[in-house]
Order: sequence, then structure tokens, then C-alpha cells
Amino acid sequence: MKKLINDPKNVVQESVQGFGLAHADLVEVHPDPLFVSRRQPKSNKVGLVSGGGSGHEPLHAGYVGFGMLDAAVPGAVFTSPTPDAIIPATVAADSGAGVLHIVKNYTGDLLNFETAAEMAAAEGIEVRTVLVNDDVAVEDSLYTAGRRGVGGTVLVEKIAGAAAERGDDLDAVTAIAQRVNDNVRTMGVALSACTVPHAGVPSFDLEENEIEIGIGIHGEPGRHRIAMEPADGITARLLEPVLEDLGVGSGEQVLLFVNGMGGTPLSELYIVYRRATELLKERGIEIGRSLVGNYITALEMQGCSISVLRLDQELTELWDAPVHTAALRWGF
Amino acid sequence: MKKLINDPKNVVQESVQGFGLAHADLVEVHPDPLFVSRRQPKSNKVGLVSGGGSGHEPLHAGYVGFGMLDAAVPGAVFTSPTPDAIIPATVAADSGAGVLHIVKNYTGDLLNFETAAEMAAAEGIEVRTVLVNDDVAVEDSLYTAGRRGVGGTVLVEKIAGAAAERGDDLDAVTAIAQRVNDNVRTMGVALSACTVPHAGVPSFDLEENEIEIGIGIHGEPGRHRIAMEPADGITARLLEPVLEDLGVGSGEQVLLFVNGMGGTPLSELYIVYRRATELLKERGIEIGRSLVGNYITALEMQGCSISVLRLDQELTELWDAPVHTAALRWGF
Repeated sequence: MKKLINDPKNVVQESVQGFGLAHADLVEVHPDPLFVSRRQPKSNKVGLVSGGGSGHEPLHAGYVGFGMLDAAVPGAVFTSPTPDAIIPATVAADSGAGVLHIVKNYTGDLLNFETAAEMAAAEGIEVRTVLVNDDVAVEDSLYTAGRRGVGGTVLVEKIAGAAAERGDDLDAVTAIAQRVNDNVRTMGVALSACTVPHAGVPSFDLEENEIEIGIGIHGEPGRHRIAMEPADGITARLLEPVLEDLGVGSGEQVLLFVNGMGGTPLSELYIVYRRATELLKERGIEIGRSLVGNYITALEMQGCSISVLRLDQELTELWDAPVHTAALRWGF
Repeated sequence: MKKLINDPKNVVQESVQGFGLAHADLVEVHPDPLFVSRRQPKSNKVGLVSGGGSGHEPLHAGYVGFGMLDAAVPGAVFTSPTPDAIIPATVAADSGAGVLHIVKNYTGDLLNFETAAEMAAAEGIEVRTVLVNDDVAVEDSLYTAGRRGVGGTVLVEKIAGAAAERGDDLDAVTAIAQRVNDNVRTMGVALSACTVPHAGVPSFDLEENEIEIGIGIHGEPGRHRIAMEPADGITARLLEPVLEDLGVGSGEQVLLFVNGMGGTPLSELYIVYRRATELLKERGIEIGRSLVGNYITALEMQGCSISVLRLDQELTELWDAPVHTAALRWGF
């Protein structure tokens, strides 16, 4: 294992410290228990909190700031954060209008956010939860009952964040977040495995010429392993199940999100994007907005995921609304 | 070799096409000869053109847009673009105030940009050239006489681009670009090699526990190979020669740029950034601005580079000026 790290047990602390130093205008890092909060909170705004295992950067700390999250809770690598960190993050995010927890559907995350929500409620903070479960690859998985939460999470955080920033109340922000989740589907592929620092060995093995379709963001098993094939074929293998599951058709407008898993060059993501635009065009589906880059990763895994979000006018406006975070920024 | 590509000989065309589709609001892609131009050029503004071998994305096409480049010319992977593409890019970038070529110091790039500049001059376009040579690792290298141009290129393009956008004339923009180059130094490290698609095998070999200090962005040899060590030690090995060569000292203000080589997780770059801030603090050097991410890469290489730019008030203001490109965006 070769990584730019020191002691594996300090990876998350040191990385988040560095993140806080680089983005001190946007965030404050609370070291113990570890969470990241927005530097300039707005009063009487619905607070958005997300979190999960580390290793998916820039998710979630990279999305703390204006128009997105108010706090992020990084767990150990690929390990859910504990309630003792989620609770103070929830308190920090509360400015009197309640807090929405955006939780990727993994059993550990769900349990720990639930516990934290109950504790926060006991302190008088109204907490709602939206569970993101956009991965069409598999039902039930290594760490999940039901579908996993993957790329769609970025879109939920951006769009619900914009709704909170414009002043929607807790019911409305929750409904918007749920609407994004209901209208987004994702599927990913791994060309290589990734290595959790404290494990020191790859989390799974792929043969020299083998790839895994439907991989999870922790390297959990996908649908099947196949021999390597050209990018255009892989793109179809990811996009078609996404479109079918979403039931999106001719005349509809979507946001197309091609996401890198962390170790794949940006140039390759654009090759996938190119083919995806052709496949959508063949079906008469219009690309209203798009996003290409490394936004929810699995350490240094090579591969990508494709997410499609069905747009309507309001979701498009909320997507376009100003955002100022370390990893997504426009309008500032 | 596992990559998200189709036929290796179409990698650059397909990737740039995808890039153009994803960023149609910002750029226009000219397929043959291949170059990328700014969608909404300004009249009577100094035009900025850069280019070089592909494989360093988002450099250079990702920096075409308001406040940065007017055109970018992508060569084959790790291969200089030819004059027949640089010439029309130069013509497209000219709006009557002359054109600045920003050229990384590689022999092929230099020759081809020189030829193109002469041909453009013959068509009545005034062309100046700034050669970027910020890599302190080695004098002369596999493809270079003198020092190589690496991370500093991103800073030259941003800051000279802002000078052009505010209306500086060709002399002034050239002087600013030269001033950035004179005040920036960089050094990189590779933890793994990268594979050029049409070659199909890694461009060099590193042992299981070996890293290369002073690597070039094409995998050219650096200063030496050492056994893997903690990130804090590697950070010092990169930063100290940079600071010494730059001659920056206590009380001065710098821009600290920690750049990923393409295959390294963002979380690791922040660990390097964290240690770099400590080392600068020990020397009394103030970090005025910073940038952390994958901005000039070497395909899927794992590793990073550290650049330090000595700031003054004008360079800081130009850095802060609005920019709207695919890969750098603020103020919009």
C-alpha cells in the first residue's frame, strides 16, 4: 500500500484538519468529536447535516457552505460516524428552523443518525431524515438493506441546500430532498479495487482484464464481473438500467452526472459522458444540466458512476441557485 | 491496461468532444485540427493560448473561458500539439490586441509553438511567448532543455488571464505572466506510474515500496527514488527545495498549491497540505491563498506536486479576480 498518509489511524483527522486549513473561509473543523460546520450560519434557516464513512471525498465536508450543507460528520474510512459526533453537528446546524439529516442508505449510518436524531429531539431540535437509496445495481448488499445511497447524494445535498437557503421550512426542504431521491438513479463500475488505509490490502480483487458492473462506493459487490470492454459499451451497461429503473422517456429533461471513483482520469469521464449524451439523444431525452468529475469517490478506485436525475422547473432552478462550498461553487 | 476508453487512437478526440458537450456554454470544440476556443470572446482583449500533450486534464481545455485562456490546443497524449492546430487557435484567440502563448518548457512544445507564432505573425498577429519552467527537481530532462514546466502553469494561466480580462495590453500581460513564472517553483512525487493509452504499458516501473521524488508530469525521471515514507516526510522533501530555490522567507506571503497527479484521493492531498502549512509557519511564511486538487495531472498517476508562488498585492488581486472555466470558477 502506497498512500500519502502518516499513521493510518490518523488519516481522517489529518485530512479534515488540512481541509479546514485550506477552506477556513467556509468551514470550521471541530476536532473531538470530529465534525465540520459552516463558518457563517444563517439564522432561522433549516439546517442540513450529512455524513458517513470517510474515503468518498469531497463528500461530505466538501459540500459544507452556502447553499448546501450546514455540517458534515466524517466517520473513519468506510465506517459510519457515531451519534456522539452527529449530535453536536446537528446542534451546530440548528438555527431555530429544524434540521434535515441526509443519510445514505447503509445500515450503520441509518442506525447512528436515527439515534442522534432522537437525542437531538430530546434537546428540542426538530429533526427529519431523508434516506438516499439511488443505486439500481443491487437490492440489499454488504452493508445495506434495500438499495445503497451513492451519487444521487450529491444532487440531494445541492438541491435541498438551495431550498433551505431560499427559506423553505423543514417540511418543504424535506419534501424537496425526497423528491430528488425519488427521481435519481445511479449505477457504477470498478476497474480496480481500493485499499482502506488501516486494512492495508485491497478490499477485493479484480483480474487483470476484469471489471465489476454495479460496484458500491466501498467496493461492495455489484451485479456481475465481466471482461474489460470499450468505454462505450460500459457506458451503456450503466446508463440503460438507470434509465429503465427511473422510467424516464422521450421529451423529458434530465441532469446527467458522470462521477469519477477517485483514481480515474478526468479525460476518461468525458469519454463516458460523450457516449451517454448519444444514448440519451437516441431516446429523445434532453440533457438539461450536467456534472462531470470526482464528486463521490471510493478512495483511489478506478471507475465511474452515472447518475440521472429527472428534472422539473423547480429542481432546475434549485440546481442553478448559487452555491459556495469547497467542491461545488457557482454564483460566488 | 484498464481504462474507460474506446480505440486508444481516438482517446483525445472523444474526450475533448465529451468535454465540449458538457461545457457548451463555455467552449467551442474545433475537431480538425483539434483545438478548443472560448465561446464568448471579448473584442480588443489580449488573447491567451496554451496547449501541450493531453493527459494532464483539466489542463489546458479546462481553463478556457472568462478570465483565463481564449484557446487551448490538446496534442496526442504526452505529445506536443502541431503548428497546424496552434495556428488556428491563435487566430481564434486574436481579437486585435495580440496573443500570448503560454508554453510549458518541453522541447517539442517550444518548437511547435515557435513555428506557429512565426506563421501567425506572417498573418499579421502579434504573438509573444512565456515559457513556464517552474520544476526545481532537475535541470534538463527526458523531453526538456532546462527546467520543466509543471504546476506553475495553472497559476500563470489564471493570473495572466485576469490581467488580459481587465484590459492590460500585450506587453503588460506578458510581463505579468513572466512575473508569475519567475516567482513560482514546484516539485512532484510519484507513488505509481501511469500508462499512455496507445503504449498500453506503464511508462516506468516503481517497486512495491518505492516512490520517485521530483517526477515529471509525463513520468520523466526525477531526482531519486526512495523507499515509501510517511506523508509528512514526503511533504518536506518536496516543499523544502521549492522554498530554497524560490528564496522565499519570513514575512513573505505565498500561494500554496497542492496538486494531485490524477490517481490520488483528494483526502491525501489535504494531509500534504496540512503538513505544508506547518512547515511554512515554522519559517514565518504566510499562506495568502491556496489551491488543493487535481489541476495538472499525469493520467492516473498516484502522487502530488507542491507549488509555491510568491505573492504581491497585484498578483493576489489578479488571482482573486473572477474566473469562469470548467475547472476553475469563482465570481460567477
